[in-house]
Amino acid sequence: MQTSRRGRVDPFIVMDVLAAAAAAEAAGRRIVHMEIGQPGTPAPAAARAALARAMAEGPLGYTQALGLPALRARIAGLYADRHGIALDPARVVVTAGASGAFVLAFTALFDAGARIGLAMPGYPSYRQILTALSLAPVGIPAAAECGYQPVPADLEAPGLAGMILASPANPTGTILPRDRLAALLGAARDRGIAVVSDEIYHGLHYGAPAVSALEIDPGAIVVNSFSKYFSMTGWRLGWLVVPEGMVRTIERLQQNLFICPPHASQVAALAAFEAIDELEANRAVYAENRRLLLDALPRMGLARIAPPDGAFYIYADVSAFTSDSRALAAAILDSAGVAATPGLDFDPDRGGRMLRLSYAGATADIREGIDRLARFFARGG
Amino acid sequence: MQTSRRGRVDPFIVMDVLAAAAAAEAAGRRIVHMEIGQPGTPAPAAARAALARAMAEGPLGYTQALGLPALRARIAGLYADRHGIALDPARVVVTAGASGAFVLAFTALFDAGARIGLAMPGYPSYRQILTALSLAPVGIPAAAECGYQPVPADLEAPGLAGMILASPANPTGTILPRDRLAALLGAARDRGIAVVSDEIYHGLHYGAPAVSALEIDPGAIVVNSFSKYFSMTGWRLGWLVVPEGMVRTIERLQQNLFICPPHASQVAALAAFEAIDELEANRAVYAENRRLLLDALPRMGLARIAPPDGAFYIYADVSAFTSDSRALAAAILDSAGVAATPGLDFDPDRGGRMLRLSYAGATADIREGIDRLARFFARGG
Repeated sequence: MQTSRRGRVDPFIVMDVLAAAAAAEAAGRRIVHMEIGQPGTPAPAAARAALARAMAEGPLGYTQALGLPALRARIAGLYADRHGIALDPARVVVTAGASGAFVLAFTALFDAGARIGLAMPGYPSYRQILTALSLAPVGIPAAAECGYQPVPADLEAPGLAGMILASPANPTGTILPRDRLAALLGAARDRGIAVVSDEIYHGLHYGAPAVSALEIDPGAIVVNSFSKYFSMTGWRLGWLVVPEGMVRTIERLQQNLFICPPHASQVAALAAFEAIDELEANRAVYAENRRLLLDALPRMGLARIAPPDGAFYIYADVSAFTSDSRALAAAILDSAGVAATPGLDFDPDRGGRMLRLSYAGATADIREGIDRLARFFARGG
Repeated sequence: MQTSRRGRVDPFIVMDVLAAAAAAEAAGRRIVHMEIGQPGTPAPAAARAALARAMAEGPLGYTQALGLPALRARIAGLYADRHGIALDPARVVVTAGASGAFVLAFTALFDAGARIGLAMPGYPSYRQILTALSLAPVGIPAAAECGYQPVPADLEAPGLAGMILASPANPTGTILPRDRLAALLGAARDRGIAVVSDEIYHGLHYGAPAVSALEIDPGAIVVNSFSKYFSMTGWRLGWLVVPEGMVRTIERLQQNLFICPPHASQVAALAAFEAIDELEANRAVYAENRRLLLDALPRMGLARIAPPDGAFYIYADVSAFTSDSRALAAAILDSAGVAATPGLDFDPDRGGRMLRLSYAGATADIREGIDRLARFFARGG
């Protein structure tokens, strides 16, 4: 069997947890899911109703490669609403999820072999998408004291052509304050490093809202998604904001690599903007779940966590119990019936001492998960 | 603005036609669309009804990376129904359209710089997807006498790592007979060339059905789609069949590059299998449209066409009128109000003498288009 080097991307370690959880559930056991990075809620009711109407009315064939004009305009409007920015809808590209946005941005920016920096811990698919595109991910260990976010000196790594920033970040939920984001963007500009700003958890904050790179650099390249705040993971829809001079390149890449984003998802997403009350109610659930966890975890001995400013994750230091988070996650699943994600997926070097807990589920489930984890750690982990 | 070399993919020349057609329609003119490679019909009613039910019932979150198990099983069943093949559903990967299937297959098979053969004329995105992935498309001129399909000697082009086959092909509609497909697959195997068989127009034939590469080589790599036969273009759903030993690689690539195919589209596609009567009625419309065109075109002076065995295209030699198909398409749009695709999109070298007509629309539109084209060519083209 002929296969490529770049096709040999790493598996997600959490897949072992998922498989074991599925087996346990198939055997009749109830598992509390705190490993999954998606809301337990469906797309907003208004979004689903709009799609039901559209399906009765028209064929839902290909859309423009860049997406439905009305949706692009509404996304641009979000930057006025959230950030006070007048963004030209012509710079908004609707994509096949944030995943599709990354593929388009990386392909438009970088040729094979280019070195792209990213903080570790970080979203594991950054590394794998880069590898699949014959690019070279350069993992930069980020310090707990810096909220596991990079600092300008990290951009001095040799030969970086690009850098990925994420705020709020996965797996930590930490948000880059405006001054730190500005310092990173400035350092990148000084060095000619192209920044891709992953803002897919924007809208999910529990203190000050996250700052968009577009607030600091009007020409920034920004990735966002309908998966998280808009509760539409399975719809595979996101967006990309690019400088005006890059739109035609991205349009041609999208025409060829994707043709267009899914039409049905675009119809639903446009209507999701009319469901802010429902989405804010979801956020209130996450806020309550987060409050419960922040109250309970220290009493279990999990006191060292990254500042959980946004998203719906807590990244906890479990080094008091183990240096093998994979084994710990397996034990938690086996003994406590709680699925959690080993830090190794986010940081192959130091993630053995870390565990990610997602609180995107229903509050009753989070309460149950907390009770189970408390009993587990009370027994010594 | 930093941009990559591989991001500089060619524009579609038909985009000029589309823009001019849109401008004409905005000015109140009626245009007959024979340029678009998509059915005028929506997804089957049963598919839309199934999605409406599913939206009321569950959250439609992420699915398994490889797709819903029931859908993979049903797709595998299609190979029993159509080709008499027992295909293991474990080898079926649901993808974000055929586009997504190509990205996955090429990434899994080939490293940057690899040379991939493809017949010209051919689907233009093959070349562009390969370029975007830092691969080298090798266009192989295919002869009209061979139905514009490649022959085994073409695989002797220097240093080919891979070859794309398409049957029925776009833009010609020609089908590779079993013996010719077998000869090509055999020659590729002898030379260690990986073949990707594009079968997205399977199901749309007007004589003998197309042969799947899987009938000849049980380990073939096959791309297919719900866009054409199943009339679901905008839903962006396709599939890939890979050898058992490649499934894990493809699964990891899909997890990282796409997470999963769109859930709503998968639900709709599964139900589309229950709508074969509706889909066969669509095919009967294409058959009638094709009959009308084959009757009318020779009388206009367009007698030299590729054998239109399948799909919904006719690729016509217009060299009696022009050697600049781009200008001809512009003139046809301007004078006759018919949008058609210049052959240059499919064959940069020889496509100046060719025009592609799509007959995927309604029969009334095709009749109108024929009348308009007849008047145009009667005036001398």
